[in-house]
Amino acid sequence: MTRARAGVLHTPHGSIPTPVFMPVGTQGTVKGLSPRDLAEDLGVRILLANTYHLYVRPGPDLIRQLGGLHQFMSWPRGILTDSGGYQVFSLSGLRKITEDGVQFRSHLNGDLHAFTPESTVDVQLAFGSDILMALDECPEYPVGHAYAGESMRRTVRWARRAAQHHSQRMAESPTRHALFPIVQGSTFPDLRRECAAALLDLDADGYALGGLSVGEPRALSLEMVEATEGILPRGRPRYAMGVGMPAELPEYVARGVDMMDCVLPSRNARNGCLFTSQGRVTIKQARYRDDPRPLDENCGCYTCRSFSRAYLRHLFLSGEILYAVLATRHNVRRYLDIMREIRDAIVSVRYPEYLNFVRSASADAG
Amino acid sequence: MTRARAGVLHTPHGSIPTPVFMPVGTQGTVKGLSPRDLAEDLGVRILLANTYHLYVRPGPDLIRQLGGLHQFMSWPRGILTDSGGYQVFSLSGLRKITEDGVQFRSHLNGDLHAFTPESTVDVQLAFGSDILMALDECPEYPVGHAYAGESMRRTVRWARRAAQHHSQRMAESPTRHALFPIVQGSTFPDLRRECAAALLDLDADGYALGGLSVGEPRALSLEMVEATEGILPRGRPRYAMGVGMPAELPEYVARGVDMMDCVLPSRNARNGCLFTSQGRVTIKQARYRDDPRPLDENCGCYTCRSFSRAYLRHLFLSGEILYAVLATRHNVRRYLDIMREIRDAIVSVRYPEYLNFVRSASADAG
Repeated sequence: MTRARAGVLHTPHGSIPTPVFMPVGTQGTVKGLSPRDLAEDLGVRILLANTYHLYVRPGPDLIRQLGGLHQFMSWPRGILTDSGGYQVFSLSGLRKITEDGVQFRSHLNGDLHAFTPESTVDVQLAFGSDILMALDECPEYPVGHAYAGESMRRTVRWARRAAQHHSQRMAESPTRHALFPIVQGSTFPDLRRECAAALLDLDADGYALGGLSVGEPRALSLEMVEATEGILPRGRPRYAMGVGMPAELPEYVARGVDMMDCVLPSRNARNGCLFTSQGRVTIKQARYRDDPRPLDENCGCYTCRSFSRAYLRHLFLSGEILYAVLATRHNVRRYLDIMREIRDAIVSVRYPEYLNFVRSASADAG
Repeated sequence: MTRARAGVLHTPHGSIPTPVFMPVGTQGTVKGLSPRDLAEDLGVRILLANTYHLYVRPGPDLIRQLGGLHQFMSWPRGILTDSGGYQVFSLSGLRKITEDGVQFRSHLNGDLHAFTPESTVDVQLAFGSDILMALDECPEYPVGHAYAGESMRRTVRWARRAAQHHSQRMAESPTRHALFPIVQGSTFPDLRRECAAALLDLDADGYALGGLSVGEPRALSLEMVEATEGILPRGRPRYAMGVGMPAELPEYVARGVDMMDCVLPSRNARNGCLFTSQGRVTIKQARYRDDPRPLDENCGCYTCRSFSRAYLRHLFLSGEILYAVLATRHNVRRYLDIMREIRDAIVSVRYPEYLNFVRSASADAG
C-alpha cells in the first residue's frame, strides 16, 4: 500500500496527467531544446521557469509587453514559476531578509533589488504563469531547529500576504493563475507539520514542498514528505520542488507527490551523464568509443532512434552543440518515460509491485 | 548574359539541383543542427565535412568500422569531403611539404601525421564520401608568383596521383565516389589557367576552385573564377570552395559556379550576425530589446515562424544553447533560400535581371 495517486491537473494551457515531471527552463528555455522538441517529440505538458532569472533578465515588464512568457518563448502549454526565493538565497551575493521580504543583488551586474510576497506574485503574473509560487525562505542544510522554526513561520506569514495579494489581483483578472504556498521547516518533522497545518487555512490551489534536495541525506528528504502527507488536503496537488534522481521519482510518488521538477536530466546530459533504462552511461568512457548501439535500446527518442553511442561520444569529446541537444533530448525523455511508467502502474493498481521492481533494479545498477 | 547554369548533380545519396550551397559539418555535425533539422526543415541535399578534423578525431578507421560517415552521423543524403589540405595549412602547427605529401602535427595533441595524395583518397573513401577532393596546397594570401607557380604545379602532380589511386580503388569498389581535383594558382590568372588546363586531361567528375576567400580582395576572387571559366569542361560541376557572403553567391553563380560551401551562415549565426532578406541583423543591439517581429518576415523557417527578435536577443545575451540552434537554423535557411531564388531565376531565363536586382539591394543594405 502506497500513497501514490494519479490525477489530472487543469491549467489554462492544457490538462496535465499526474504524477508529472516538469523539465526546467531556467531562462525561458530548456537548455538545448526548442518548444517544438519539447511538445512534439517529448510530449512535455508543463515546464518550470525560474522567476529570479527571468526577473533579472530580461525582466517582467519586457515579458509582459511581449505578451507574457508563453508567447515570449513560444510555448503553448503549461508553465509553473518558482518564487525566486531559492535563487536569491543560492545565487545572489549580498542579501538581507526582513519581515517585509528580501533584498538582494543581481548576480549579473550587482544591481540592488527586493522581492516581497506581493511583488513576486506581481512578477509571476507579468509572466502569465499558470502556477505561481509564494515567496519563501529556503534555509541551507544543515540549520538549527530554532532558526528553521523562525524562518518557517516567516514563510507562512509571507504565504498569507502572497495569497491575499493574489486574491485581489485575481478579482480583477480575466485569466486564471493558481498560487501554491511552500511548506518549509528544514529537516524537522514537527516544523514541517506545523507549517503544513498553518498553510491549510489558505485553501490553496496546491501545496509545494520546498527545502528538499539541498544537501540533506535522501532518507531525510523522503521523511519530510511523509511528515506532511496526512495533513495536506488530498484534493489538491502536491509539488516536491527540485527532485530528483531517476530512482527517486517513484519514491516521492509513493509518498503522495503529484509534481516534481529538477535540472538533473538536462544538466547531467550536458555533463556527459546519461540516464537509460539499464542505468547510467558516462559517455566519455573509452568503452563507448566504437559502440554502435543506441544509447538506450528501449528508448524511442530521436537520439536513440538515430545515433550510436560512438557518435554521441565523438560529439561530446568534440564539444559540439549537437551533443547537448541530443543528450538533453534523451535524458528528458527518459524522465518522462519513467513518469509514464509510474502513472501506468498506478492506474493499473500495481504500484507496490512496480516500486519493488524499480528498487531492486536500482540496487542492481548500483 | 551571364555564365549561370542550372543542373542536377547525381550522387549515390540522392540527386541535387544546382547551383547548390553546402552547409559545413566540420566534425561530423553542422554545429547545432540535427540531421533531421537539415533534411526535413531546411531541405539540405548535400553537406560538407572536413577530412582533417574527422581524420584526427574520431579517425577514419572508426568511421569505416561504424558504417561510414553517412551512418555515423545519421545523414542519408550527400556528403562532400575536402582534401584536408586547407586545415593542415591553417590549423596544424608544424608542417612540412615535400613532393610526397605533407607532414603535420595534430592541433589536438601534437601527434605527427602525414597526408599524401593517395592517403587522403583512402581516408575519404573510409568515410564513404560521395565527392572527394584531391590533396592540394592552399597557399596563403599574398604569395609571390614564383612560389604560387611551384605550389600549383605540385598540386597538379598530386591531383594526378590522387586520380590514379582513386581509379585503382574504384576498380575494386562496389560503390561510386567522385573525385574532384582543385584548381590553384593564388591570384594569378596565368597560373589559374595553366592549372585548369593541366587538370583537364584527368577527365575528372568535377573541378574545384581552391585558394579563394583566403584574404584576397573580393574582385580578385571573382576574377580568378573568370580566368578558368572558359577552360573547365562545361559538362562537369564546378565547385568554388569556401565562399561566400550572401551577396557573393549570385556573383559566383554568374561566373559558372555550381557548388559552394562556407562556414559563414553557421559561424556568424553563433556570433550574433543574422542574415535576412532585408540585410544583416546584429541581434545583441539594444534596438531589438523589445522587438516583437520575427527575425525575417519573409522567411518560413521555424525560428522566424515561432520567435521574436526580442526572444532571440534574450537567448543570445543569456548564452543559451537554443540561441545557436535557432540562429543557425535561420542563417542556413537564408542561404538555401538564396540558392532557390538563384535557380528559379536561371531556369526562368531572367538571371541577368535577378543579378541586377540583388546587386542594387546589396548596395542599399550597405
